[in-house]
Amino acid sequence: MRLRDFQREIGETFQERDARRGLMGTFGWYVEEVGELATALRESPPASPEQAEEFADCLAWLASLANLHGVDLEKALRKYARGCPRCRRKPCRCRSKK
Amino acid sequence: MRLRDFQREIGETFQERDARRGLMGTFGWYVEEVGELATALRESPPASPEQAEEFADCLAWLASLANLHGVDLEKALRKYARGCPRCRRKPCRCRSKK
Repeated sequence: MRLRDFQREIGETFQERDARRGLMGTFGWYVEEVGELATALRESPPASPEQAEEFADCLAWLASLANLHGVDLEKALRKYARGCPRCRRKPCRCRSKK
Repeated sequence: MRLRDFQREIGETFQERDARRGLMGTFGWYVEEVGELATALRESPPASPEQAEEFADCLAWLASLANLHGVDLEKALRKYARGCPRCRRKPCRCRSKK
């Protein structure tokens, strides 16, 4: 699936409600999902349906936020199109990010 | 761009370092990016390059986490393929998520 298609789908499904709730209210729901992802990473088996579900939710709420501010996620990812945005190598050879 | 291609790119660029750092260490970096996204949403203009960059970083670190536990993000998104996973409608008509 193209990221652009996913973002549009999320907009068609949730944007009305997201807009009513507002940006920082929606950010609160996003962070709640980030917390649930932490739980799933700690408590569920790797690649289990429970983990997959929390990853999907983090992506969906991030897409909701992007829709609210008109950010094109697919275009944003160009930052990573040529390997590491900092050292420009693949694999990354930066000394930071330890 | 397909989400699967992005996830593979992130793996080729960062997985060696991500694996060395470990799952919860990588989760810490992810949460740091979530915090930077909050700042960009509050302080930068909608759809500005600064906002786009933070969305990209949140996606990249989420892909790193997914790679560490072998989660296929594109497959995970099937949860949202038929509108809202809860009410199955598009637009969503759930009474929660206010």
